Amino acid sequence: MTYCLAIALDEGLVFCSDSRTNAGPDRVSTYSKMHRFSVPYDRSLVLLSAGNLATSQAVVAQIQRDLEGDDKGRFNLLKAKYVSEVAEYVGELSVREQAKYSGDNAPGAGFNAGATFILGGQVKGQPQELYLVYPEGNHITASEQHPYLQIGETKYGKPILDRIIRPDTPAETAMRCALVSMDSTVRSNATVGPPIECLFYRADSLQPQSRYFKLEEHHPYLARLRKAWDDNIRQAFDNLPTLSEVFDAEAGRH
Amino acid sequence: MTYCLAIALDEGLVFCSDSRTNAGPDRVSTYSKMHRFSVPYDRSLVLLSAGNLATSQAVVAQIQRDLEGDDKGRFNLLKAKYVSEVAEYVGELSVREQAKYSGDNAPGAGFNAGATFILGGQVKGQPQELYLVYPEGNHITASEQHPYLQIGETKYGKPILDRIIRPDTPAETAMRCALVSMDSTVRSNATVGPPIECLFYRADSLQPQSRYFKLEEHHPYLARLRKAWDDNIRQAFDNLPTLSEVFDAEAGRH
Repeated sequence: MTYCLAIALDEGLVFCSDSRTNAGPDRVSTYSKMHRFSVPYDRSLVLLSAGNLATSQAVVAQIQRDLEGDDKGRFNLLKAKYVSEVAEYVGELSVREQAKYSGDNAPGAGFNAGATFILGGQVKGQPQELYLVYPEGNHITASEQHPYLQIGETKYGKPILDRIIRPDTPAETAMRCALVSMDSTVRSNATVGPPIECLFYRADSLQPQSRYFKLEEHHPYLARLRKAWDDNIRQAFDNLPTLSEVFDAEAGRH
Repeated sequence: MTYCLAIALDEGLVFCSDSRTNAGPDRVSTYSKMHRFSVPYDRSLVLLSAGNLATSQAVVAQIQRDLEGDDKGRFNLLKAKYVSEVAEYVGELSVREQAKYSGDNAPGAGFNAGATFILGGQVKGQPQELYLVYPEGNHITASEQHPYLQIGETKYGKPILDRIIRPDTPAETAMRCALVSMDSTVRSNATVGPPIECLFYRADSLQPQSRYFKLEEHHPYLARLRKAWDDNIRQAFDNLPTLSEVFDAEAGRH
């Protein structure tokens, strides 16, 4: 199913994605869900994808073709004045791809061709922006109160984001939190798996990335993170108040 | 949507359930999801329900009618030699109720009348048993490797159970873990809410319960548990290894 998330901080934007795809248990594979488009000093965009792989790959391919093509009437990423225009554009491409293969008249009518995207970045002259593009083509943005967006298998990894992430969270803390959120999901759901990609875009840098790394399954840091999180959670649980006060109250009642 | 769970320990069975129901945002209400049937020294059974409220209430009502009725040919809880027979019985009642109102010829055909149950307990002469009864009527049991079952909104609360629960976990620890699992879910999903009921059945006691309590929204223990968990998780996160080693490795690469 995939799991991707992005966080809007005062410092910039954090993106994190997994790489597992599956069309059933014996068709499990590895594809990157993170796509980058940038012109240094002018614009920097990151696109994360979830849902139907064919649809999301077709959208990315069309974005590339529009960039390289010479149809002056056609929109492409370089023409956008705002990241929100790119979000609309991605939405339209996505809807069109889905309709090709799963519309009412298509041979495969009825199968779920939907794809969901996270799009974030900055165009020179504008502040950074972050959007979630729905399969229906429309989009929403993150907010101060909810400064992150998730797509795919979102539930396992949500609680830690709610606890830790604020707009003023430092970038390293937010990236570490994204990895914990991702790792909790990887351990609870077989359709989400490594390698895990993580990118930090520093606000107003207009560079492709300020930080980027890809952690394979057995990366030593991932192993240390998992072990430390396991031990620390165990201790966090052991240090909780016991139920003895509740039991005593119940005993007092009978 | 509800969230209920049960845990099979060497010491006995732990049951935990919420009380929120909703048929849309302006039809939110409170109903217990925990139903108990027992004959001291002979049998003790606990039934937790999730899904369509009308279906699960009808099943519970039918169980009561069968117990009180004088149709000697009809099965009832007192006639079961094994808890697994009760699981089959609950499954049959559930399927029959669903078909009444949402089968092909019914006026409301097509709406989701499905209900899922957790059934656990003991009949004298047999060991304790724990089952999950599906809307289709069939059931599965817990195992040594997976000694707990969940129904309803299960994803948020699963990771802590995976970390803490083993068959030899002490009862108080398991009840505390169930409450943490429940509280994480309550905080992440508006269709799950207090009061929270928690029951411990001691293996071979053949009593209705060894421990039972109901925690309302503002119970002081719930407030303490939440605050302690928040603080401890925050500390657990702060004590994780930072990404500096990964950043240094990336920097070394360019």
